[in-house]
Amino acid sequence: MLQRTLNSKQIAEMESRYRARLVSSLSGFKSANLVGTIDAKGQPNLAIVSSVTHLGSNPPLLSFISRPNSVQRHTLENILQTGVFSLNSVEAAFTSLAHQTSARYPRQQSEFEAVGLTAQFEHGFAAPFVQESRVKIALRLIEHHTIKANNTEMVIGQIEQIHLPDEIIKPDGYLDIESLDWVTISGLDSYHVTQRLYRLQYAKPDQPLQPLSVCGDKATWNN
Amino acid sequence: MLQRTLNSKQIAEMESRYRARLVSSLSGFKSANLVGTIDAKGQPNLAIVSSVTHLGSNPPLLSFISRPNSVQRHTLENILQTGVFSLNSVEAAFTSLAHQTSARYPRQQSEFEAVGLTAQFEHGFAAPFVQESRVKIALRLIEHHTIKANNTEMVIGQIEQIHLPDEIIKPDGYLDIESLDWVTISGLDSYHVTQRLYRLQYAKPDQPLQPLSVCGDKATWNN
Repeated sequence: MLQRTLNSKQIAEMESRYRARLVSSLSGFKSANLVGTIDAKGQPNLAIVSSVTHLGSNPPLLSFISRPNSVQRHTLENILQTGVFSLNSVEAAFTSLAHQTSARYPRQQSEFEAVGLTAQFEHGFAAPFVQESRVKIALRLIEHHTIKANNTEMVIGQIEQIHLPDEIIKPDGYLDIESLDWVTISGLDSYHVTQRLYRLQYAKPDQPLQPLSVCGDKATWNN
Repeated sequence: MLQRTLNSKQIAEMESRYRARLVSSLSGFKSANLVGTIDAKGQPNLAIVSSVTHLGSNPPLLSFISRPNSVQRHTLENILQTGVFSLNSVEAAFTSLAHQTSARYPRQQSEFEAVGLTAQFEHGFAAPFVQESRVKIALRLIEHHTIKANNTEMVIGQIEQIHLPDEIIKPDGYLDIESLDWVTISGLDSYHVTQRLYRLQYAKPDQPLQPLSVCGDKATWNN
């Protein structure tokens, strides 16, 4: 297998879309979520993001990255105006509709209508959920940070509500998100479904690792 | 399908490990990387992380989240001391060894030796790479942010070198990381391989989406 080395000068000299595809592939597989927001006038907005990250569970916090000069700017402006947003699972059945939200629609155009996904307002929450998504999360903005190196914005929300299918909740709290065909992203534009290898026991220094079933029960390596 | 709603009070009252498993499952699929560092005395350290995020490609930036009071504290301290770290792909062939780095080893114990992965020093870079990982990235610390809400630290590195198999680089810059069996994580402990659905064309407002092959060529929806 031929090994290639790329240094910072070679990366800087790449054609810009080539570099974006290559560098965005380097972090490994990414999460796939739709961010639902609304502006002060009641205009809903929907954007796919591949940067949602779990920051901690007590308090329950998720973050995502908003790029400057991108369509996600409407999303960021809405969140700063209203203080709320939703995160919604991207599933194989409607992945191409979710990807289409990344087109540069004008501000007065709802991406829900443009791509054919359904805005769902309920549970006393101001931002729209995606009806087609089986996992829907309501969040309140609690903190944001500007990354000086490239002027992106890290948006941090605290979870206020979770709506999800009862059957994916396993006895120990683990959620079987693979059973929803929740997709994962590589690079800028590649979508993948998954196949579980195993869950693994909590690791301890002097104890051999054991695999677990999806329910958290002891399993064997042959499974 | 029975739908469940969980509010913030119910989340706050969950048993702590149950809540950690549930909330950490909510972001969707996560990246899987090993962070290699070294302290000022030359002691190497290795830790699995599931929070590596692509922040931008010009300059090429990746971030990860370091939790307080966790084994990753050694990692953070080393990066603040030396200013450098490596990120290395977690592949199906050695996923259980990568998971084992999350055990709380004492500071003077190298996780490389403890779990059976190989520290590789080369290319004039101070931090160790993981020899078994086919994608290895050298980064220099350029910025870090403390998340006030839970005292976690966002660590941002600029890419200085990339080492990867030539054959995964596609003509348009996309990297076929699925072909390496680079795994993805759900929750705290579940590991998955992937199967590509499709790549998708850059989305435009008034143009129907077309699928692409792994090489970025036009494909058909039946593929």
